[in-house]
Amino acid sequence: MSAYPLLEGIDEPAHLRELPQTQLPRLSEQLRDYLLNSVARSGGHLAAGLGAVELTVALHYVLNTPYDRLVWDVGHQCYPHKILTGRRQEISRVRKIDGPAGFPVRDESPYDTFGVGHSSTAISAALGMALGSRNRDDGRKTCAVIGDGGLTAGEAFEALNHAGDVRPDLLVVLNDNEMSISENVGALNKTFARLLAGGVYGNMRAEAKNVLERMPGPMRDFAKLAEEHVKGMLVPGTFFEELGFQYFGPVDGHDVDELVTVLGRLREMDGPRILHCVTRKGKGYAKAEANPIAYHGVKAFDPAAGLKAATEAAPLTYTDVFSQWLCDMAEQEPRLWGVTPAMREGSGLVAFAERFPDRYLDTAIAEQHAVTLCGGLACEGEKPVLAIYSTFLQRGYDQLIHDIALQNLPVVFALDRAGLVGADGATHHGMFDFSYMRCLPNVTVMAPADERECRQMLSTALAIEGPASVRYPRGRGPGTVPETTLETLPVGQAQIRRWGQGIALLAFGTMVAPAETVAEELDATLVNMRFVKPLDEACIREMAETHDAIVILEENMVAGGAGSAVAETLARLDLRPRLLQIGLADHFVDHGERDEQLALVGLDTDGIRQRIHDWRDRTVASPATSE
Amino acid sequence: MSAYPLLEGIDEPAHLRELPQTQLPRLSEQLRDYLLNSVARSGGHLAAGLGAVELTVALHYVLNTPYDRLVWDVGHQCYPHKILTGRRQEISRVRKIDGPAGFPVRDESPYDTFGVGHSSTAISAALGMALGSRNRDDGRKTCAVIGDGGLTAGEAFEALNHAGDVRPDLLVVLNDNEMSISENVGALNKTFARLLAGGVYGNMRAEAKNVLERMPGPMRDFAKLAEEHVKGMLVPGTFFEELGFQYFGPVDGHDVDELVTVLGRLREMDGPRILHCVTRKGKGYAKAEANPIAYHGVKAFDPAAGLKAATEAAPLTYTDVFSQWLCDMAEQEPRLWGVTPAMREGSGLVAFAERFPDRYLDTAIAEQHAVTLCGGLACEGEKPVLAIYSTFLQRGYDQLIHDIALQNLPVVFALDRAGLVGADGATHHGMFDFSYMRCLPNVTVMAPADERECRQMLSTALAIEGPASVRYPRGRGPGTVPETTLETLPVGQAQIRRWGQGIALLAFGTMVAPAETVAEELDATLVNMRFVKPLDEACIREMAETHDAIVILEENMVAGGAGSAVAETLARLDLRPRLLQIGLADHFVDHGERDEQLALVGLDTDGIRQRIHDWRDRTVASPATSE
Repeated sequence: MSAYPLLEGIDEPAHLRELPQTQLPRLSEQLRDYLLNSVARSGGHLAAGLGAVELTVALHYVLNTPYDRLVWDVGHQCYPHKILTGRRQEISRVRKIDGPAGFPVRDESPYDTFGVGHSSTAISAALGMALGSRNRDDGRKTCAVIGDGGLTAGEAFEALNHAGDVRPDLLVVLNDNEMSISENVGALNKTFARLLAGGVYGNMRAEAKNVLERMPGPMRDFAKLAEEHVKGMLVPGTFFEELGFQYFGPVDGHDVDELVTVLGRLREMDGPRILHCVTRKGKGYAKAEANPIAYHGVKAFDPAAGLKAATEAAPLTYTDVFSQWLCDMAEQEPRLWGVTPAMREGSGLVAFAERFPDRYLDTAIAEQHAVTLCGGLACEGEKPVLAIYSTFLQRGYDQLIHDIALQNLPVVFALDRAGLVGADGATHHGMFDFSYMRCLPNVTVMAPADERECRQMLSTALAIEGPASVRYPRGRGPGTVPETTLETLPVGQAQIRRWGQGIALLAFGTMVAPAETVAEELDATLVNMRFVKPLDEACIREMAETHDAIVILEENMVAGGAGSAVAETLARLDLRPRLLQIGLADHFVDHGERDEQLALVGLDTDGIRQRIHDWRDRTVASPATSE
Repeated sequence: MSAYPLLEGIDEPAHLRELPQTQLPRLSEQLRDYLLNSVARSGGHLAAGLGAVELTVALHYVLNTPYDRLVWDVGHQCYPHKILTGRRQEISRVRKIDGPAGFPVRDESPYDTFGVGHSSTAISAALGMALGSRNRDDGRKTCAVIGDGGLTAGEAFEALNHAGDVRPDLLVVLNDNEMSISENVGALNKTFARLLAGGVYGNMRAEAKNVLERMPGPMRDFAKLAEEHVKGMLVPGTFFEELGFQYFGPVDGHDVDELVTVLGRLREMDGPRILHCVTRKGKGYAKAEANPIAYHGVKAFDPAAGLKAATEAAPLTYTDVFSQWLCDMAEQEPRLWGVTPAMREGSGLVAFAERFPDRYLDTAIAEQHAVTLCGGLACEGEKPVLAIYSTFLQRGYDQLIHDIALQNLPVVFALDRAGLVGADGATHHGMFDFSYMRCLPNVTVMAPADERECRQMLSTALAIEGPASVRYPRGRGPGTVPETTLETLPVGQAQIRRWGQGIALLAFGTMVAPAETVAEELDATLVNMRFVKPLDEACIREMAETHDAIVILEENMVAGGAGSAVAETLARLDLRPRLLQIGLADHFVDHGERDEQLALVGLDTDGIRQRIHDWRDRTVASPATSE
């Protein structure tokens, strides 16, 4: 007999809504088991989903999805939602190249109303939907679900402030598990915690329960709702009330019965309203409850045994290289700071935070602020290092331009996860940083070919008297062992790796390694360009003057990337070699393994070889006509 | 005798601090008169400065500037600060090419601790400075001054939330004049207004004053401070207290005596603390108090007579063209929305807001939210038009990438103030949008050559089933009269304006007009490219095949701009004409008149002519060597 008899009857939320409310706790149990067993086999995001099981069941039970709009923030918690919305089988291939994405994606399902990946957009998107509904007067309900971590980002605040002003029919559910990915920080979070821990609410609740239990049904419902509202005035609600929301809660986010009752009432109301649910990340799986950070995102594991401890001798990732460098440099440089917008683990700041707590700053999910904060530090002669994923720096672009580049302030940007990132997919690739950074005056842009060079470039970045970035990919490199010293590289100088003839390959960062093989095969010259900005103009001139053709390789958009920088330089030098730009083409790239993605876009050795062959054949066949 | 005897004795704040406190009201009066008369002659930002006179005097009186750090947000209100910090004479040339900037600029003075222009960065920057001071234990005080408008942007919230967590020695002064540039919006603002208007504070204040007046000096000071604190618990403070700040106020921001007393006490405290000052934009000049929006930024005028009414027959600006188009289109298209992040006047939405209030959205200063909000609207089949300055869209870059481009949602970006903007200077130029937009898949990027085409492109953008931007400059164009129809242009199709020989000029947007003259002189071919993306590849091929040389003209960074897009296309087509890319070079551009700036960077007719001559001579003299 199936272990999930109720769950298996639900191929869409309409089936869920046919169940009697009394069955929902059992269904939730089955959904949780199914999720755990499925993610344990496939890997993926686990702890957030476990914490959102009852909330997901209750929301789809109460809302008339997909007609009513349900918008998930970030989306780490969306697996239960995917399982209930027709993707129960497919979830076992989540984040694989032919499976569903790890986040809601509009193209995947009509139930995924808004694609996400970065946090704190849900209220804005839902507000737009709710206003659209108001314009058409179609009676649609709109609900955004956001975590307490997501609330720390400015966009969420902007959206709350605007919603409280224009007053649409909008329900916001705050899924408060007191963490984002790592521990949550920020003063607001402390306020939440203090108020939740305080006695007032607990006592009142106990008393109210006594009264409620002696009331007849409909009156009890009404009183319960009133109770929620009264609580709102005593507990964290003030913050939201000042922003124009009606506040309800906190409610137990694992009591599916209570959730259905409260959400049912809230669904019928109008105006901006917020329901504060308290949940536990990892709920129902003891190991994940005990260590929700480790179980945030997992590889396949045995649920009975739990995650395997990392083996000591694992090869260094680029993140490890950064982590080690930061600590070593901090030993020598008392003004060095390590700053992260809520990615302590992912960005490799755990050791630094332990060893140098006074110079460690976690801004919470707040990229804009993190960038300007580094500018303020740099004004005072401090030496801030912002550890940030390439994709997240997009959130601080204006601050990078005005607060850092325009003022020429020495801030080091350690851009992790640059290029294709694998399973997180389209929202998390670092595809644009060469393009959006190199157009800014004063900024030095570097990309290491290997681990050793990564460390050298970080030291170089710190020595430069202006903004400097080092961008490196997710995971491991070719396997070189970094020096233990803190030596720097000459700024703007490329490294000729190999002399050949006919073709010169100019490779940036991660593309040096695959280019090496191809260069051998073709007896081509290979240059490790090292600097996207300033480019090594002398080297480019030499290459153009001594070769028939230049091939540029980069793991960034061709549009405006490092190759276009080389092309601009060639034009300025009045040099016109044949030119091939290999990089990311003009489309987004879906989830899968990083290796699969590189092969798919032609940036592995085979792809590069093929591109060059095809191009060489083609240009020989049809020489340029404008000579 | 001088009209400003006290003011003229102050060449730096140290002189101010030698004055007895009793003289400060007189000094404030002189400062206000001086400011009014100076800006009336020079033009510039007026109303904000008038409102900040007493606050500026009190801050420099109490803080030991420049050792203590004073950080102004946005900086529209910084003229009194500049006058008191050694730039009294120079302020008469504010925003002129050889005068001081209209905003604080680090290079200009040690008193300008952080360069600004866009709002809401001050708390972040000051927090960085305060933490730097803590790291060195140097006893420096740090103070950020932010307006209530600036508080609506997410970055300010992020910074408050972080400061409340790390608890530095940081004083935030909220200069609450109940407006940003146009009227302030957002729920939080309503909360402020309601609480300020409420009777509680007023009554308590009257009573307290009675009591206070009968106390001896030092005790009165203490009681006054205590009073502020008590008020804080009754009035808007809750919001800030929840973010971990100690709240004081509201105080009368035009009572310099009270300000000095309160600020003096607050200076000696530690931890994150906020003083809420209520001021009046335009204070002391009745016409500006009555119409602070009109007097926010002014041209030279006669203070006795006030601003001249705009003459009816003024030539159309691009903003006017947009404004008219939006209303005309809204008549036909019931799903069209006009959205602005707090720039109703600047972006030309006044008429639309009046005629279509149900489809008009002012998000307050909240660019991130504004972009995602448009995404949400587009999901529901609504047709959002985001009217935003090019420079401000930098604030919503990640949202543009993920929420709009990745999901291929049809949102129209009407990018005003693209290119060089004149007096607002480096922070406000729209120098990067071609570069940061064209690297994004799915986005159509247009730039009109004249007013008529601007209207056609806006209609085209709305018809495209994906994201589309139209970028146009500040002010006037060549003077063409737009049609009244809503006709569209064929997407991705350039317009050949003139056939010549030898050289083909490919001009984008604003560069078509000056290129026209040069093309005549050189008998060159001239193409109005119209689309940066998708480029007209057939046209580029034809031009390259029929001309020796291609010259590209754009008012954007050369780095990654439209010219580099053309170069990428040429490389892909294996065409190698001689190529000259004319655009903005790799540095920021200071304030001045737009015409002056264009001449300075060589993007006027003379500059373009000269560049092409020099280049032609040089390429003839030294032909490419790699052929």
